[in-house]
Amino acid sequence: MPRVLASFFVNGKVCKDPKLVTADDFFRSGLNKPGNTSNQLGSIVTAVNVNNLPGLNTLGISLARIDFARRGLNPPHTHPRGTEVLVLLKGRLYVGFVLSNPGPNRKNKLFTKILNPGDVFVFPEGLVHFQLNVGKSNAIAFAGLSSQNAGVITIANAVFGSDPPINDNVLAKAFQVDKKVIDDLQQQFWWDNN
Amino acid sequence: MPRVLASFFVNGKVCKDPKLVTADDFFRSGLNKPGNTSNQLGSIVTAVNVNNLPGLNTLGISLARIDFARRGLNPPHTHPRGTEVLVLLKGRLYVGFVLSNPGPNRKNKLFTKILNPGDVFVFPEGLVHFQLNVGKSNAIAFAGLSSQNAGVITIANAVFGSDPPINDNVLAKAFQVDKKVIDDLQQQFWWDNN
Amino acid sequence: MPRVLASFFVNGKVCKDPKLVTADDFFRSGLNKPGNTSNQLGSIVTAVNVNNLPGLNTLGISLARIDFARRGLNPPHTHPRGTEVLVLLKGRLYVGFVLSNPGPNRKNKLFTKILNPGDVFVFPEGLVHFQLNVGKSNAIAFAGLSSQNAGVITIANAVFGSDPPINDNVLAKAFQVDKKVIDDLQQQFWWDNN
Amino acid sequence: MPRVLASFFVNGKVCKDPKLVTADDFFRSGLNKPGNTSNQLGSIVTAVNVNNLPGLNTLGISLARIDFARRGLNPPHTHPRGTEVLVLLKGRLYVGFVLSNPGPNRKNKLFTKILNPGDVFVFPEGLVHFQLNVGKSNAIAFAGLSSQNAGVITIANAVFGSDPPINDNVLAKAFQVDKKVIDDLQQQFWWDNN
Amino acid sequence: MPRVLASFFVNGKVCKDPKLVTADDFFRSGLNKPGNTSNQLGSIVTAVNVNNLPGLNTLGISLARIDFARRGLNPPHTHPRGTEVLVLLKGRLYVGFVLSNPGPNRKNKLFTKILNPGDVFVFPEGLVHFQLNVGKSNAIAFAGLSSQNAGVITIANAVFGSDPPINDNVLAKAFQVDKKVIDDLQQQFWWDNN
Amino acid sequence: MPRVLASFFVNGKVCKDPKLVTADDFFRSGLNKPGNTSNQLGSIVTAVNVNNLPGLNTLGISLARIDFARRGLNPPHTHPRGTEVLVLLKGRLYVGFVLSNPGPNRKNKLFTKILNPGDVFVFPEGLVHFQLNVGKSNAIAFAGLSSQNAGVITIANAVFGSDPPINDNVLAKAFQVDKKVIDDLQQQFWWDNN
Repeated sequence: MPRVLASFFVNGKVCKDPKLVTADDFFRSGLNKPGNTSNQLGSIVTAVNVNNLPGLNTLGISLARIDFARRGLNPPHTHPRGTEVLVLLKGRLYVGFVLSNPGPNRKNKLFTKILNPGDVFVFPEGLVHFQLNVGKSNAIAFAGLSSQNAGVITIANAVFGSDPPINDNVLAKAFQVDKKVIDDLQQQFWWDNN
Repeated sequence: MPRVLASFFVNGKVCKDPKLVTADDFFRSGLNKPGNTSNQLGSIVTAVNVNNLPGLNTLGISLARIDFARRGLNPPHTHPRGTEVLVLLKGRLYVGFVLSNPGPNRKNKLFTKILNPGDVFVFPEGLVHFQLNVGKSNAIAFAGLSSQNAGVITIANAVFGSDPPINDNVLAKAFQVDKKVIDDLQQQFWWDNN
Repeated sequence: MPRVLASFFVNGKVCKDPKLVTADDFFRSGLNKPGNTSNQLGSIVTAVNVNNLPGLNTLGISLARIDFARRGLNPPHTHPRGTEVLVLLKGRLYVGFVLSNPGPNRKNKLFTKILNPGDVFVFPEGLVHFQLNVGKSNAIAFAGLSSQNAGVITIANAVFGSDPPINDNVLAKAFQVDKKVIDDLQQQFWWDNN
Repeated sequence: MPRVLASFFVNGKVCKDPKLVTADDFFRSGLNKPGNTSNQLGSIVTAVNVNNLPGLNTLGISLARIDFARRGLNPPHTHPRGTEVLVLLKGRLYVGFVLSNPGPNRKNKLFTKILNPGDVFVFPEGLVHFQLNVGKSNAIAFAGLSSQNAGVITIANAVFGSDPPINDNVLAKAFQVDKKVIDDLQQQFWWDNN
Repeated sequence: MPRVLASFFVNGKVCKDPKLVTADDFFRSGLNKPGNTSNQLGSIVTAVNVNNLPGLNTLGISLARIDFARRGLNPPHTHPRGTEVLVLLKGRLYVGFVLSNPGPNRKNKLFTKILNPGDVFVFPEGLVHFQLNVGKSNAIAFAGLSSQNAGVITIANAVFGSDPPINDNVLAKAFQVDKKVIDDLQQQFWWDNN
Repeated sequence: MPRVLASFFVNGKVCKDPKLVTADDFFRSGLNKPGNTSNQLGSIVTAVNVNNLPGLNTLGISLARIDFARRGLNPPHTHPRGTEVLVLLKGRLYVGFVLSNPGPNRKNKLFTKILNPGDVFVFPEGLVHFQLNVGKSNAIAFAGLSSQNAGVITIANAVFGSDPPINDNVLAKAFQVDKKVIDDLQQQFWWDNN
């Protein structure tokens, strides 16, 4: 495991003594199996990162398979520690990301694209992005991430589904709705597709 | 400007030839002036970063002053490229951040604290965080950020106020509300307090 | 393009002014098309990196599709600036990498594995590695690399096919063969499958 | 604690297992209290860094409050692992930093500025810098540093007050004074205002 | 040991508690002694890196002395984690390195130079390079490497002398020779001059 | 020039278009020539870094030769952007470095060693260090530095020989001497041995 931009207890992993390393430390199976998309979002992410493939520790890269049912959505989320490059294998996706705040009286710019099989799209580190299946079948994508432990923050889950809940005064003011709406949202079940 | 983790056109700035540098390239005034908090959020961020203090380029740090009116809110946001360390100078703040997704059937953990003058709190890179004035006066805080151009993504603005708007099918499914609610939210004016 | 571990003329690319960026700067099509494996190695790499997808500049990640004919070989090579994580989509590959020199009187350790569809394998930065199709059909793999411009050094090409050729005294001594053998090897045509 | 440019025993701290982390790991109080400036320099630095706020580990940022009595001085020093950005809250400071050696027969360039409340000044990583209170009252500044453990080297203390002392032949020659002067300086008490 | 780009079990070393550090942790003797070049390559590398000088851990630099008998060769090799800068003290060397693959139908460019005493040459990170003594005496060089643990991969050893051997179908196809030639090469003794 | 921790106008250099690069961009002669030590310090540093060897740009390493007359001194200095590893070729040196401030009422720890030919010593990034010739002949050392442009700050020159001079109130208070002493020191000629 050369060149270290180390994550220690950060990712709950410690590097193995190199003398004890075997080929199996660099191997993991299972990305051929479709994830179960029978959930409220119609999508599921199967990640191969340092948490289940120890040989990735310190190497600054990981992979994921993303399955989408028809109309399935990978909802707005960020990767706090990584850029994502996605390639679509099957189906048709509407994808996009939103830039950082541009300053007073300007709106956050949205970039979108319709992807067909073989298309590649980049979601830069830390930006809010999403993918929606707009095709007539299920969809399958693979993604590379520029960290062995990029992290995922699903916006709705982090904002409305945290434990404990964020004070509803904060959210009512931030989202310009009544506290009643916030309270209802906080009662919802927020599925984590990762 | 030693040691470079360079941001080039990334931040729209190019390093100056060091022979032409003067003390003014490392100087900026104005952080003594209270920002104008007469807005819907009751808060305003005055940032000193590479965009207005060129000598910070490549140096990996910047500062901000944050002013809060009574009940003012710095709404849930992320810094895609930096950790924030805040010190409260005046007032009383309820602050918090939410961790990354913990995996299926677990909720994103929320950490909160009430801050009094002189208290310091850390908001790690890329995580969703907020500050609410819960005191009886205005509040003033200073913050250091671990990038010359950390960026800000106000969650509500990026999600509901982007230009062009995100397709409402995406947002209705992601936030588990009717498209009507999304459409209303997208009609709102989303003030950017940065 | 946030957070910069910049490659400037290093990769012949300059970051675009962010105000002029569009969705197309983050997009590239074509990875659905099988590469042409009708060559002496029976393999071909189709890379998506900063050279053909400018939006990857400074983001520290790239992708590649690798096609193998029956018995096709991606010959021993290194990536001088990146770790590779490969996922096999179709076929059956014998893959391996060799560790750095272990010191006097010890041999360089080889790690190998037979991959089936859905299997993932890691090739750490800078190490010599290869993939051989040992299945009964063609094979298709995707790979993520931890650099926007990881580079490829095909060992045989660099050693025996350089321009101008390396002095044959160097190679005869290094590979413990007659200069006649080296001269013959240097006359060969060395196909670059990248 | 995401993204690691780790300091392990380097700073005597080990990252905590993230499952055991609480809000208090990201919190510290006390920066509202004026430091005691009744010392020979008339200044005192109160630092909040990884040594007293563990949650900063690996996050690349820290803060400090600097108090100055009338005519108080934060004497020439360097931060070996960090850039400092200072904002003046109260008082009036004469500040400056000196560039690296420019080569034979040229002098090290000095950049200075008089700061008033709200003024911000940058002291780039590793350069010798100082702040002198030139106002009619005490002065208070806050500073951000681009490391969780930037370090401080007070020039006079390191050169004349080390334990054991540097051989006086070295210092007499380096500073072009008699060894008697060096010996006297080495007898002095060198107050560390950090 | 400031500023950490840490190698942990990667290099089998753990940083020492700074309170226990002594001058001896930053010291190593022996680079005045000529290495023994009575071997098949006529060269030997004596390295001072984190494996035998613990104080280098995390500091990103190491040194080596390289001795060459007459006609001695430091054979084609790479450093997977470091750039090398060599200065020749005695003798006359023919040195060179080969660039990465340039793409289809183009050859890997070779850069060479004859070095005389006092000459300095750079071998960029990860590229295949070599040094051959072409003078009438022995030769001595010193090298700096941009890592505390740059690693060495001697091409012939890694390719033909690994343990276990690489499948000869891979090597026969890669090097365009009969398997008989590969088998003979794999029977050879591959001296590691590091 | 792979892997970029770029210094742009920071070091006054711009990376060359890789298509135009030649072997000469990676070459420099002259380190066999003794530097002229007929100066007040009796020492001279001959550096090979990005300022005179452009191919080092972004590669994170440089070299220097240091010559000492009898009793010659390389006076207390820091490298703001690099660790130094020195190997002594000839002579006998008393070397040392001083740690960062340890906190109130504790002294900065000094580590020293007498070096003989072949001895290697590490001077960690940013720390004050020196080398004094204590042998009976001249002395010659080579050093590697962990930056293509590590910088040098000679303490006496930066503090007493800057242009313009630092206000003598600052220095009198910092060094606990009369302003008259400071004024005399500021009149001196401060030789830069780099």
